[in-house]
Amino acid sequence: MRVAVLGATGYTGLVLLRLLADHPDVEDIVPVSTSQPGAPVSEVDHGLSPAIAAKLASTGGKLATMDEARRLAEKPGIDVVFSALPHLKSAEACAPFLGASVVIDLSADFRFADAAAFATVYGHAHPRPDLLPRAVYGLAEWHTDRIRRADIIANPGCYPTATLLPLLPLARAGLVDGTVVVNAISGISGAGKKERFDLLFCERTENAGAYNPGRVHRHAPEIEGELQAARASLSLLFTPHLAPIKRGMCVTTVVRLAGNPPAEGPGSVGALLAAAYEGRPFVRLTGSRVPQTRDTWGSNRCDIGWHREGDSLLLFSAIDNLVKGASGQAVQNMNLRFGLDEAAGLPLNGQL
Amino acid sequence: MRVAVLGATGYTGLVLLRLLADHPDVEDIVPVSTSQPGAPVSEVDHGLSPAIAAKLASTGGKLATMDEARRLAEKPGIDVVFSALPHLKSAEACAPFLGASVVIDLSADFRFADAAAFATVYGHAHPRPDLLPRAVYGLAEWHTDRIRRADIIANPGCYPTATLLPLLPLARAGLVDGTVVVNAISGISGAGKKERFDLLFCERTENAGAYNPGRVHRHAPEIEGELQAARASLSLLFTPHLAPIKRGMCVTTVVRLAGNPPAEGPGSVGALLAAAYEGRPFVRLTGSRVPQTRDTWGSNRCDIGWHREGDSLLLFSAIDNLVKGASGQAVQNMNLRFGLDEAAGLPLNGQL
Amino acid sequence: MRVAVLGATGYTGLVLLRLLADHPDVEDIVPVSTSQPGAPVSEVDHGLSPAIAAKLASTGGKLATMDEARRLAEKPGIDVVFSALPHLKSAEACAPFLGASVVIDLSADFRFADAAAFATVYGHAHPRPDLLPRAVYGLAEWHTDRIRRADIIANPGCYPTATLLPLLPLARAGLVDGTVVVNAISGISGAGKKERFDLLFCERTENAGAYNPGRVHRHAPEIEGELQAARASLSLLFTPHLAPIKRGMCVTTVVRLAGNPPAEGPGSVGALLAAAYEGRPFVRLTGSRVPQTRDTWGSNRCDIGWHREGDSLLLFSAIDNLVKGASGQAVQNMNLRFGLDEAAGLPLNGQL
Amino acid sequence: MRVAVLGATGYTGLVLLRLLADHPDVEDIVPVSTSQPGAPVSEVDHGLSPAIAAKLASTGGKLATMDEARRLAEKPGIDVVFSALPHLKSAEACAPFLGASVVIDLSADFRFADAAAFATVYGHAHPRPDLLPRAVYGLAEWHTDRIRRADIIANPGCYPTATLLPLLPLARAGLVDGTVVVNAISGISGAGKKERFDLLFCERTENAGAYNPGRVHRHAPEIEGELQAARASLSLLFTPHLAPIKRGMCVTTVVRLAGNPPAEGPGSVGALLAAAYEGRPFVRLTGSRVPQTRDTWGSNRCDIGWHREGDSLLLFSAIDNLVKGASGQAVQNMNLRFGLDEAAGLPLNGQL
Repeated sequence: MRVAVLGATGYTGLVLLRLLADHPDVEDIVPVSTSQPGAPVSEVDHGLSPAIAAKLASTGGKLATMDEARRLAEKPGIDVVFSALPHLKSAEACAPFLGASVVIDLSADFRFADAAAFATVYGHAHPRPDLLPRAVYGLAEWHTDRIRRADIIANPGCYPTATLLPLLPLARAGLVDGTVVVNAISGISGAGKKERFDLLFCERTENAGAYNPGRVHRHAPEIEGELQAARASLSLLFTPHLAPIKRGMCVTTVVRLAGNPPAEGPGSVGALLAAAYEGRPFVRLTGSRVPQTRDTWGSNRCDIGWHREGDSLLLFSAIDNLVKGASGQAVQNMNLRFGLDEAAGLPLNGQL
Repeated sequence: MRVAVLGATGYTGLVLLRLLADHPDVEDIVPVSTSQPGAPVSEVDHGLSPAIAAKLASTGGKLATMDEARRLAEKPGIDVVFSALPHLKSAEACAPFLGASVVIDLSADFRFADAAAFATVYGHAHPRPDLLPRAVYGLAEWHTDRIRRADIIANPGCYPTATLLPLLPLARAGLVDGTVVVNAISGISGAGKKERFDLLFCERTENAGAYNPGRVHRHAPEIEGELQAARASLSLLFTPHLAPIKRGMCVTTVVRLAGNPPAEGPGSVGALLAAAYEGRPFVRLTGSRVPQTRDTWGSNRCDIGWHREGDSLLLFSAIDNLVKGASGQAVQNMNLRFGLDEAAGLPLNGQL
Repeated sequence: MRVAVLGATGYTGLVLLRLLADHPDVEDIVPVSTSQPGAPVSEVDHGLSPAIAAKLASTGGKLATMDEARRLAEKPGIDVVFSALPHLKSAEACAPFLGASVVIDLSADFRFADAAAFATVYGHAHPRPDLLPRAVYGLAEWHTDRIRRADIIANPGCYPTATLLPLLPLARAGLVDGTVVVNAISGISGAGKKERFDLLFCERTENAGAYNPGRVHRHAPEIEGELQAARASLSLLFTPHLAPIKRGMCVTTVVRLAGNPPAEGPGSVGALLAAAYEGRPFVRLTGSRVPQTRDTWGSNRCDIGWHREGDSLLLFSAIDNLVKGASGQAVQNMNLRFGLDEAAGLPLNGQL
Repeated sequence: MRVAVLGATGYTGLVLLRLLADHPDVEDIVPVSTSQPGAPVSEVDHGLSPAIAAKLASTGGKLATMDEARRLAEKPGIDVVFSALPHLKSAEACAPFLGASVVIDLSADFRFADAAAFATVYGHAHPRPDLLPRAVYGLAEWHTDRIRRADIIANPGCYPTATLLPLLPLARAGLVDGTVVVNAISGISGAGKKERFDLLFCERTENAGAYNPGRVHRHAPEIEGELQAARASLSLLFTPHLAPIKRGMCVTTVVRLAGNPPAEGPGSVGALLAAAYEGRPFVRLTGSRVPQTRDTWGSNRCDIGWHREGDSLLLFSAIDNLVKGASGQAVQNMNLRFGLDEAAGLPLNGQL
């Protein structure tokens, strides 16, 4: 397979390059950058070995322009175009590749089925509403069949991925009621590679706290949309926090239980989660043990634990925000779309 | 004043030494350690300057034994005995000083008025139930008058301090209803200076997550007890998290509003908080700005922000777990008890 | 005393504000900022308590413009103007205050006695060579008498401070020969508060390494200049490194011993260091124990240890780059200049 | 291939398990632990996925005892026994496997050819001097041919690996003279997974400094021994430092140049290094760019840069102390020993 990565020099782009370089079914990667075209990727990111050039034969190991990528898409053809471009720029950049290539978009541009909802959340008219009907929400464990046929796969955000995976099986079973209180801690890389004061080492080390409280945050509507699609009409109080870790995300979700599920056996929380993810390689159920972000560092896993407290249920989930929360899930979606082993090229073990 | 610090070599003890060494009304500090008696404190903790010995004249700058401390308490007398000893050991160690000295205990031994409640939470009979009636819960901004007359001041835990300060004014005003969902992030020093695998640098860096979920945690009952004392019968879902910071704690509290307080003016959340803490030096109200742990690093402040979302209210608080959450509040309680300036010797500004 | 801080919103400026706010002899601070004039300092840096406004009466707690500072310097007068402005801007900004105020400049503008040397190192003609004769190099423990009479005090850089304090006594005694190999590790705050990719949290955490190798670095000439002033003609191989700490600097210096000093007693390394710093509050000699940066975090101390290996000597020093390496030494210089206690308002103990 | 890992639960053992689990030529791994036999490895280290059990078929995914490992070595046979046991315990534990299995020992037990040298450095008689003649020092790029025939491969320490790789080509070419000054910064994982106060998060974060100065350190003799084997009689001043990173090591080496090599072309530093490592996948030469530890995080690379300053040369090297400095080089040695692709199963790219 030949694949392209638009926006290859941001954090998600750079993780994509690593994953694709180790993918057994990917033969050629076309890394695209508008800011540093022509530079060898191993000089842009010194973590990348010059040997990676062997997997970037079309560009001789260098970053290509958008024009070069489009020419390669015409001939010899590009199977998948991953876009790690920013919101509001990505849809336009992906559009020319449609038809010839499958688009997997890591931005928010295709995450809402409804252009009006997008406009409300992002404060800007959707750049390509005409394309929305062709997009599938790429939560890999849930829309597997639709992903297998999609032209455009809208890779979910890291917060929605980590929140939805523990919540959806219970919401669909009608076990969740009322307001769901979600508190999440994200690693700093979730904010992207941007020259901002608040992302400096000296501003973030020895520092933790919430930000952007309330519904205005972009992720609550995305999560609520998926819950509604699962016919669970729930409202969320979603509060993101930052802590001084580079990669990683943990989510603590508090729900009021509807009904009185048994502690064990059929219909229990554990059984519903186990049934939802049976045979899926990237969900690990940890029972009463609370997963920690490091367990999933560098892995495409989402680890899920839970604890019942009277008629409340606490759900705990941990992912690597750059892998299962972004680039890893994008590769997982490629695997599904092209009939490959779902786990091909994706780490199951987290780094120490 | 002459003061003693039992358990001077743990993190709270070492912070106490620093604060007391800079306190204008403290003339002599007696640091006590069962593990390293006789060692100069500036060799036990190389952050302490040898010049600190000038403030430790009774022991020549060295750690004293418990016996030496008791002799000094008899003659020439010790005004305050701070205990930074572990739970279940502290009460017994403090008892001999009572009468001659005021005891300010940083352990949990005197935090519950009821010995049975203590036994339930700590899984062990209270070591000195006879002393409980003499103890006052030292949440400095709330029990100020009783602290001024107390024999024993039970310094609150860091989680209860950071949770109660934003919550109590609203709970007392009858604005809070039902279950309160509290999510807290603590710095690693909250676990103390212990040789445990899970506290190693390599285990905690690049790692975040919840621990000890549910009501069994020791802090929820302590918080609920105080709320009940304020005639607010609330139940808590309290979930502590660890993040890789040495010092600092932030708490995100979600409450359902009872009644419909105005957004501004009399009866509003802001007005109630302002009234509760008027004239108190160590509470800073930040309005809609969310405080971050670093704002309070090294300071005795608790910074409080809030955000309303429909009929829910989010409260945000940040403290330094070793200062307002432990040693700083202990000094604040000493100041109140001895009629000193409440802020004497206590940092108002956080370190950069 | 009334003092002004030019460039109050950078890291050194913000640490200066903290130190000056706690200084017993400073009654009024005028914080100056060209970027955010009019803003309350406690809103610019949320670590600062609003109560700090009591020490900023002239400006009502707010950042002043340069014009306002100059007017205050005329009347009622400003005793000391600290400049935390960048190199090449600072000299010009300080010039109008001369005569009425003592200038303590934390930039490099006055660190070289020779304008040509400055131009070589900084690649730019010196902005005010006419003022150089009025400046004294403010290495507080060495030029104490001249500092007491200076119009302009050129506060040393952090690397030179940490390197010179252990080295000067030995160089002056003729014990050092040939090339001195200096390896230093600095905290990230040494690079200032700048929106640069290489200073982002995600770029610096889990990362360490050397930078700017060789003589071109600005600090080697500054150090060599001082050594020459001490009549020791030594050349340095100075290699700075960055490690993921916010504050702190440690220096490992390897020198070839000239002569064969005794291991102990008169003429030994320990005796020479002890004699050089006798009675000085901010140098702590640790002997064979190697000081660590945390020992001095937040303190104005420089801790110095040493180890002899055949005819080589290893010197180890640790400081807080923002305190003894910048703002603390600036206050120490003010204390010396105005006949105050050298240690007034300056922390002796490092933070835990 | 079937391989065993003795001491599977320490940091090097856990990294070995990860590397071996992804190795295309390894079919069965036998993890051995004396402390937790019988426990599933994915419960001992939650970063490991339960799916790893497929690669641990002999033990059903669980930790084996030493006895079980020895039985498996008899039948069906174990090709390689990796030992991540401590010094002084490893040689004895490996001995029974010799003959049937190749031993790759990550401890220091086989690093010195001379039992007397070992005894001097480690303060204890060598436990199995009879085995020393069968051991080869496993610096993979240098003793390649002997490694291919070895019964016992003594995997080098992380400090020697990072120091020798840049130094050996120049020393062998006679370019290095006199005393070599080596300053190294190591990540905390280099100290192993031990319950020690000085390895706690709160003791190491915001802290950096040298330790164990002087020749007594264990690594200088190991490095000097290799240099002598290369007929370069050099003495080292080796100073290790700790910085708050989990993984990573950077070394700054200052040498006095003998002769006057050209800046470029044949005989230059760059040409000598290039010739030494031509065709070797894990050495990256970066020229005047200084490598940083993060460039090699998770990779088996050693990145090497250099800078000439008059007649001095500065060498800069960076590795991941747990990969090229331990477990990765061990796998590289296995690859060489068994005629596999040298890079099989070993990451070339560092993690972001």
